[in-house]
Amino acid sequence: FGRTGLFYYENGHRTGGGNSTQVSSRLRFIVNATTITDSGVKFGARFRWQWDQGDAAMSSGSPPSIYAAFDHVTVYVGNVPTAFDSANLLKASQMGIYDRSEGGDPLGDFFSFENKSYRGRVNRVGLAVEYEAGSLVARASFVNPDQTGNNEDGIGFEEELGASLDYAWDNGLSLSTAAVFNGSGYKDNDQYFVGAQFAVNDNARVGMNFINNGSITESDDLGQTLVLYGNLAWKSVSFDAYVANNDGDWSGKTTDQAYGIGVNYDLGGARLAASLQRDYSELLSIDTGVRFSF
Amino acid sequence: FGRTGLFYYENGHRTGGGNSTQVSSRLRFIVNATTITDSGVKFGARFRWQWDQGDAAMSSGSPPSIYAAFDHVTVYVGNVPTAFDSANLLKASQMGIYDRSEGGDPLGDFFSFENKSYRGRVNRVGLAVEYEAGSLVARASFVNPDQTGNNEDGIGFEEELGASLDYAWDNGLSLSTAAVFNGSGYKDNDQYFVGAQFAVNDNARVGMNFINNGSITESDDLGQTLVLYGNLAWKSVSFDAYVANNDGDWSGKTTDQAYGIGVNYDLGGARLAASLQRDYSELLSIDTGVRFSF
Amino acid sequence: FGRTGLFYYENGHRTGGGNSTQVSSRLRFIVNATTITDSGVKFGARFRWQWDQGDAAMSSGSPPSIYAAFDHVTVYVGNVPTAFDSANLLKASQMGIYDRSEGGDPLGDFFSFENKSYRGRVNRVGLAVEYEAGSLVARASFVNPDQTGNNEDGIGFEEELGASLDYAWDNGLSLSTAAVFNGSGYKDNDQYFVGAQFAVNDNARVGMNFINNGSITESDDLGQTLVLYGNLAWKSVSFDAYVANNDGDWSGKTTDQAYGIGVNYDLGGARLAASLQRDYSELLSIDTGVRFSF
Repeated sequence: FGRTGLFYYENGHRTGGGNSTQVSSRLRFIVNATTITDSGVKFGARFRWQWDQGDAAMSSGSPPSIYAAFDHVTVYVGNVPTAFDSANLLKASQMGIYDRSEGGDPLGDFFSFENKSYRGRVNRVGLAVEYEAGSLVARASFVNPDQTGNNEDGIGFEEELGASLDYAWDNGLSLSTAAVFNGSGYKDNDQYFVGAQFAVNDNARVGMNFINNGSITESDDLGQTLVLYGNLAWKSVSFDAYVANNDGDWSGKTTDQAYGIGVNYDLGGARLAASLQRDYSELLSIDTGVRFSF
Repeated sequence: FGRTGLFYYENGHRTGGGNSTQVSSRLRFIVNATTITDSGVKFGARFRWQWDQGDAAMSSGSPPSIYAAFDHVTVYVGNVPTAFDSANLLKASQMGIYDRSEGGDPLGDFFSFENKSYRGRVNRVGLAVEYEAGSLVARASFVNPDQTGNNEDGIGFEEELGASLDYAWDNGLSLSTAAVFNGSGYKDNDQYFVGAQFAVNDNARVGMNFINNGSITESDDLGQTLVLYGNLAWKSVSFDAYVANNDGDWSGKTTDQAYGIGVNYDLGGARLAASLQRDYSELLSIDTGVRFSF
Repeated sequence: FGRTGLFYYENGHRTGGGNSTQVSSRLRFIVNATTITDSGVKFGARFRWQWDQGDAAMSSGSPPSIYAAFDHVTVYVGNVPTAFDSANLLKASQMGIYDRSEGGDPLGDFFSFENKSYRGRVNRVGLAVEYEAGSLVARASFVNPDQTGNNEDGIGFEEELGASLDYAWDNGLSLSTAAVFNGSGYKDNDQYFVGAQFAVNDNARVGMNFINNGSITESDDLGQTLVLYGNLAWKSVSFDAYVANNDGDWSGKTTDQAYGIGVNYDLGGARLAASLQRDYSELLSIDTGVRFSF
């Protein structure tokens, strides 16, 4: 997909004190190559090409995830979609053209599918299993930051373990829950998530997420985030809103409350979107732009 | 497209005193992904993969240009095709397998679509507009070498502004004109171009280009270039020729005259070509090779 | 294609003393773009995108090979498939999921198609010719490690010359022979190969390879390798085995004998494979995994 827009962040937050308003674009291609054996097992590989504003050139292609799917089960090896990051409702409060929720997004560190490169951790390897049956999805994942075993005692080289479970009822209620241990390879950086969403009707949804964000260093306590969100659609227009509360005590934080409102206009194949958000540092940010899929 | 051939340049000009004759190839893929909304707006993204002789590997992909096209107008954001560089006749005196005109090509610096990478200027962003109606094409472009605003006073960080206009009459006459200000981000590096071409009949064309090349440093005056060129086709064979005059005074220049002759043989899907040129340093260069499109 | 599996190598041979067992995957895409002229000449370009375990990201794309094919002859320029490396039976004793033969693979250095990058030797250029007529294939190749001529006296900058010839008879016998001079650009690093294979019936083949491995340095004598191998198929399962003898005297070598046994299970579109091998350092290695093509 491609997206481009204007991104304003108070106090030149994103440019180290330079301009507050910038053009910010992203272009992403997902390559998915598959083959099916005579016995019905599907083997495939998936990786991404991506360019973000500020990159000198397109990325050369993320490390791939190689997978085998049979019946309800898919097994991934390599650069895997981790269980915690894949929980259905974890990012449900995101809005605007850059799909962000300054208040509601998880604040902790955990492994996810790497968009571009493993960077320093070239010997990282992951294993993930996904089970899908109707409206139930269960996932478990394991990521070893260094399979050579030469850094067993290094900081940030613990094995990460994660699991998540999603379920949706016919009456419009969805539940999503996840946990990750040693997040991003940091010992005892454990995080938990529970989220619920209810579709009032075809055009209105409300939800609530609770996230325990874990912590990497002793000085920063990322605390617990509670976010309430909702969205409302009317013809081609839809509105998003959230209010979030975080009780943590970390550097840069000046308030416990964050909120955001957003609007989308569906062009049929593309989407105009805008949002206004205030983060936990009491800084305002505004984005607006267009996003489309190929 | 792909091309390969032999490139001779007197005095080892291209190898720092080494061999004068080299194999020189290029491989370029243009990726263009688009989607069309219900209302008829076309959104797309375009970038290039390229390999040139002397590169250790294919480039990872140029930064992209994201665009929206509706009716006669196309708007580009990102790595944009700049107005000056896109002027229809600016490079009409090029010949041979490497599409070069030692005498007639513009000598000044200006931004164009980056083939591989922004290199140091990762915060570059451009905006371009193109209007097309029949045989009229008008373009305007703006390139900011650093949108963070952290280098406002640096040399080479001015905003570049450019415009160009092409028109073709039914009687065979084409006009093309362009201007660029603060070319390539250098203050007062302003360049101008006027070109005319006349198609005598289906097989013969003559043209004239006038280019004011601007200048980056005070010591080098790139002067003004006047080039006369023509080409003549006969069955599968066509001939090119140009004579050029540059009145500038820059390091390496030893004469005001440059010229070139070239020949092409159309294979139907591929093209054999060769050219012999003498540049402003009185050095001869000869190229020959094959070029094809996918 | 893609492949992934477990790779055990005794004594942490591959991790510098770390873990002996690792996940090891590879993903490779071969890009082949072609066009055919009206006169029937096929022009094309070929390169690879590849990721190997331990790489931070996909490679940006190997340098390409540009080729023209007409009738029985194909001419390559650039990153060419070299004649020695392409000899049909040279690697016939390979087995397992990683297609390796610790004992039977050639030990010497020679140029081959670069999977990812020319690395330091950016001015390398190759030329190769292939002639094919029925079951006869003849190849010749030339690789100049630095066409600028600025390193004529450097070590490892000699021109490599190679040739190979394959022939197969109707009765099941195949012969393959090859030679390379100044292998990998090292003066007098000459290598020779003769191989024969006989298909006893549709399910059983035996073969023998003789390789003179040349040498780069005076202290290491890579000697001559003789390898006997065979494979046997039974329904979806096939078995491989080899015994090899090398009479060289090089650092790390502790025995003249190496052997390996392997097994494959065909899934129809994918392949499970495993092998157990002992190398010339008396180290055991075991691999097992799955491989599939797109």
